[in-house]
Amino acid sequence: MEIKRKIFHKLVTPEEALEKIVRYVRLKPLGVEKVSLERALGRVLAENVVAKVNSPPFDRSTVDGYAVRSIDVAGARENNPIRLKVVGKVEAGEIPKISVESGEAVEIATGAPIPPGADAVVMVEFTRKVCENIIEVFKSVSLGGNISQTASDVMIGEVIAYKGTVITPQIIGALAAVGVSRVLVFKKPKVAILSTGNELVKPGTPLSYGKIYDVNSYTLYSSVLEDGGDPEIIGILPDSYEKIKETLSYALKNYDVIITSGSTSAGIGDLMYRVLDELGSPGVIVHGLNVKPGKPTIIAIINNKLVFGLPGYPVSCLMNYNLIVKPIIRKLAGLRTKKTSVVKAVLPFRVFGEKGRRTFVPVALIRRGKLIAFPVGGDSGSIARLTRSDGFIVVPENTSFLEENSEVNVYLFSENYGSDLEVIGSHCPVLEKILDKLRNKFSVRMLNIGSLGGLLAIKRGEADIAGLHLLDPETAQYNIPFIRKYNVKNAVLVKGYFREQGIIIPKGNPHKIRGFEDIIDKNVRFINRNKGSGTRVLIDILISKIAEKRGVSAEDIKRRIDGYWIEAKTHFAVASAVKYGRADVGVSLRFIAEIYGLEFIPLREEEYDFLISLDALNEEPVKEFIEYLRSREFIEILNKTPGYRPKDGIGEIVRINL
Amino acid sequence: MEIKRKIFHKLVTPEEALEKIVRYVRLKPLGVEKVSLERALGRVLAENVVAKVNSPPFDRSTVDGYAVRSIDVAGARENNPIRLKVVGKVEAGEIPKISVESGEAVEIATGAPIPPGADAVVMVEFTRKVCENIIEVFKSVSLGGNISQTASDVMIGEVIAYKGTVITPQIIGALAAVGVSRVLVFKKPKVAILSTGNELVKPGTPLSYGKIYDVNSYTLYSSVLEDGGDPEIIGILPDSYEKIKETLSYALKNYDVIITSGSTSAGIGDLMYRVLDELGSPGVIVHGLNVKPGKPTIIAIINNKLVFGLPGYPVSCLMNYNLIVKPIIRKLAGLRTKKTSVVKAVLPFRVFGEKGRRTFVPVALIRRGKLIAFPVGGDSGSIARLTRSDGFIVVPENTSFLEENSEVNVYLFSENYGSDLEVIGSHCPVLEKILDKLRNKFSVRMLNIGSLGGLLAIKRGEADIAGLHLLDPETAQYNIPFIRKYNVKNAVLVKGYFREQGIIIPKGNPHKIRGFEDIIDKNVRFINRNKGSGTRVLIDILISKIAEKRGVSAEDIKRRIDGYWIEAKTHFAVASAVKYGRADVGVSLRFIAEIYGLEFIPLREEEYDFLISLDALNEEPVKEFIEYLRSREFIEILNKTPGYRPKDGIGEIVRINL
Repeated sequence: MEIKRKIFHKLVTPEEALEKIVRYVRLKPLGVEKVSLERALGRVLAENVVAKVNSPPFDRSTVDGYAVRSIDVAGARENNPIRLKVVGKVEAGEIPKISVESGEAVEIATGAPIPPGADAVVMVEFTRKVCENIIEVFKSVSLGGNISQTASDVMIGEVIAYKGTVITPQIIGALAAVGVSRVLVFKKPKVAILSTGNELVKPGTPLSYGKIYDVNSYTLYSSVLEDGGDPEIIGILPDSYEKIKETLSYALKNYDVIITSGSTSAGIGDLMYRVLDELGSPGVIVHGLNVKPGKPTIIAIINNKLVFGLPGYPVSCLMNYNLIVKPIIRKLAGLRTKKTSVVKAVLPFRVFGEKGRRTFVPVALIRRGKLIAFPVGGDSGSIARLTRSDGFIVVPENTSFLEENSEVNVYLFSENYGSDLEVIGSHCPVLEKILDKLRNKFSVRMLNIGSLGGLLAIKRGEADIAGLHLLDPETAQYNIPFIRKYNVKNAVLVKGYFREQGIIIPKGNPHKIRGFEDIIDKNVRFINRNKGSGTRVLIDILISKIAEKRGVSAEDIKRRIDGYWIEAKTHFAVASAVKYGRADVGVSLRFIAEIYGLEFIPLREEEYDFLISLDALNEEPVKEFIEYLRSREFIEILNKTPGYRPKDGIGEIVRINL
Repeated sequence: MEIKRKIFHKLVTPEEALEKIVRYVRLKPLGVEKVSLERALGRVLAENVVAKVNSPPFDRSTVDGYAVRSIDVAGARENNPIRLKVVGKVEAGEIPKISVESGEAVEIATGAPIPPGADAVVMVEFTRKVCENIIEVFKSVSLGGNISQTASDVMIGEVIAYKGTVITPQIIGALAAVGVSRVLVFKKPKVAILSTGNELVKPGTPLSYGKIYDVNSYTLYSSVLEDGGDPEIIGILPDSYEKIKETLSYALKNYDVIITSGSTSAGIGDLMYRVLDELGSPGVIVHGLNVKPGKPTIIAIINNKLVFGLPGYPVSCLMNYNLIVKPIIRKLAGLRTKKTSVVKAVLPFRVFGEKGRRTFVPVALIRRGKLIAFPVGGDSGSIARLTRSDGFIVVPENTSFLEENSEVNVYLFSENYGSDLEVIGSHCPVLEKILDKLRNKFSVRMLNIGSLGGLLAIKRGEADIAGLHLLDPETAQYNIPFIRKYNVKNAVLVKGYFREQGIIIPKGNPHKIRGFEDIIDKNVRFINRNKGSGTRVLIDILISKIAEKRGVSAEDIKRRIDGYWIEAKTHFAVASAVKYGRADVGVSLRFIAEIYGLEFIPLREEEYDFLISLDALNEEPVKEFIEYLRSREFIEILNKTPGYRPKDGIGEIVRINL
């Protein structure tokens, strides 16, 4: 069946979309239900709760002591004790069986009812037992002293908690205190979640060629949960008119809100519009938003129920959910937008938008006294982009860029954002071991973007620690020349260790590789490392030397290497490619070759050091990191790890003169 | 049975307590379990999750367009289009059935696999269909253009998410993307919760004399839930040695941690110590903390399981839970202490501690640009204190006070703290109606502490709006003389309405009350209002006038009124007391008398105005409040409400010259 392409002829802003929505549906809770106190946490009160008992419900003692007539002990002092006859005892929970007459006292426990006749309680600390039933009182007490009067806290008829209140442990306590065991709360809106696309497969099932796993069902499910909805994943729909129509009809009957993702682009497979327009009135009310990403977002209303069609790319889907769907789900749940779901942060550099469209830019948040919002690059389908982003910022449609250092609102994907320690730069399996140890105590985020990327991130204040092994071909020195070249003033170098780099090949060396030149000359599939990584720098230096020797350009050599353009971001990824036959040869560490059972041809022993931000140097996580580098335990680990050995003065802080 | 009193001879700090604990037990998760992605939100990863598929799993198109050989379209421009033959089509989720040869193109959808032979994709926007199977390309594309390369995002072997990570929607998305459907997380620690005390009764059951409802079971239950534990309420225990021993034995067998509250004070009914010491070794390891409140806190370890005995008063219990138990529950759940569970705030005035003991002071948080932490008074058993407090601050043991304006850490009871609008002061049923309306849009906290308390709260910057009706007997003027007298510079007066105050009595007037003097002279039970309330001021003025007339002191008159010392905080509470026979007579509003079906003897028409903080005047909630005062809808409500009428210029802002 040939499908006509739909053009987005009427893009609207998110605010205009909301205006359209409220013309058709009231954004308020859809019903109420009673829940027990144990299930009330985080729910929203649907009524004012009025006290039906007093608190305290009777005059009670606030201390352990003796219930007395205050006039009897007037004038009592250390040197003028007053004797009273103890005529009984009242425990908490007991009904007093005796009254206090003049000259008498009744022993009383905290929380016990005041016996008739008594009008004050003397604390036990100010009394002394003379014999079994006589006490001396050393201090006077005023009328009403140490008595908590009936209803002095809450009186019958008082409102204990108001409709609309989000129920916290304290509110639960207050409800319990007035005897409420079940409480009326707003119903959670039932939200159906579905993904569309022939390419989608459910996680946990095998992946055949051309297919990818469904991500949006799960990010949407958990986001709806966080927003007080009751989500259900309906499943994955193929791009089939009949199937989509049938499933949406079912969902419209059984849920309050429907969220789909995918199948909304104006390209091939664009069926959602037609189905929604046919299912009921008014049908599609928003045909596209002037936001980027998220232009193909659809909003429809069918029989008073809202249907959102979000983009298919995971990051786009999540950003559009947060900006457009989240506030609506929360209103239907009776929740206000949480203040803590938006935080203020500062931009480390200028961020560009797109003219005429509101642009959402995913950001990672770094704590540096203030919060810094670092834009996270990569394409919208990227998982790395998803895991690295804490939320997103908005560049308004009439703004071409946001200035460096300007304050922006960050719309959080989740309140669990940021880390105690931000590590970025070169990948090293031993560094990962150190970080795993620190993770017992701190939250640690690690991003493998190569040595050079790490150095620049530290310079921009984007991270705390970067691992580096950058060889300067002119001086044959590691790391320091690069710190000078890039003029990194806000960091120190901390001495690390040596690691042995080399060529890794399958056991038995089937292609008979003997050195780097064989990678060029033999018909083998190479796997490269990412640009900016120290290993890539090493590979390119080797290529340059060979090019010079052969009198050709380095570019010529690179073109001759099958796989030069295929980049792995970690040593593990290189080893895995060689191990499982996706490549014949790569460059990695001796240690990695041992782990993966591969052969290793040494190329060079390199220096792996740490560039550490001055801002972070005195923070606990960094201090513990450096301490661990210097520890006997770590030196032993290094000495036992194939291809590794400590540098002299490992853990020493070196200030580089620029 | 006579119980010996235990003396707290070895008080320790919370840090010393923790040191003792870790000598016996390791504070780490107690096991792991697999959960589905739908149940993973908020759980903690118990393993590093390693990608077992690449992302993307194949070279795929990032746009809708045509897969081509980039060399074929080199040099293509608007005025130099290049024609290609369209030899097929590939949709997302399909395996390409055709390859691209020189001069050919294959139509391709976003997300579809790149057919063999093609090395780039031209966006559909840069092409034009000439006829059924011929296109013109207007723009060149570089090698690899618009292709997302296999594994460029995540390569097999890469760590997707680290052990110890709290699972957010994004992490769930990343796990789904690599096909993970079930994930290993730390088990939640099973926490048994029990309350002890003969006076305790379960909410939802009737309350007999001398009993109070169990509060702590429910605040602890919900706090443990928030902290990642799996709580269960075991029930209420009487102060019985056998029963406590039996229940604790059971709980020690079936739970990881036990939290009890009550029965820990060194007074009567102090059984917990003995039982804990007998149940196993080492038994009680902490016999008391040098904190206030919370001195009688017990910590025991029996067969490697932790038992906490917390104080019985709800606020003390919750504060000690938060400071001592919470971090331990979180560690056992694999969670770090949330950064957002402590916030910085500023003190509005000096806050005193107690020498030698660490003092916890409950505070309410008010947003005024910065957060302000207002100490919340009242006794530790108070529900009002519980609901008003957002958290608590700590005055160190070696500090006699914390200075005004100093920055303090506030340990939050819950992350849902503070309000959009803080209203404090005189109680008025019509004001409650206005606030109920605002609650549709804002969170509103209302505290009835009387007119004078409200005025002082505004002066201290503690609230946004205070309702006042304070009569100055000398000038016979309302409110303004008090603003002058207390020199309130940081606020304006907003004109409100008249309300009629009078004596309220049961239908039929059984005691034949005709005026205020009858309250003094007849043998009737009066119910008073709280000190500082406008109604109390009115009552005291009436008493003074009568005293003057009779030539006696006002104090003499007060002593003659049965119930003068019993204070209700709201009009509702007064009416409820008269209605249900807890008092014979009170002073309240005509409107209230009508609601409760009581008789009304007019005393005075008074002026009820609003004192509004200058800081809040331009904030949305206050703007809407004033707008509503001025609205036709509200004027009509006033005119229909018995005893109410609008003042001229209602809603006008009056700046008082001091």
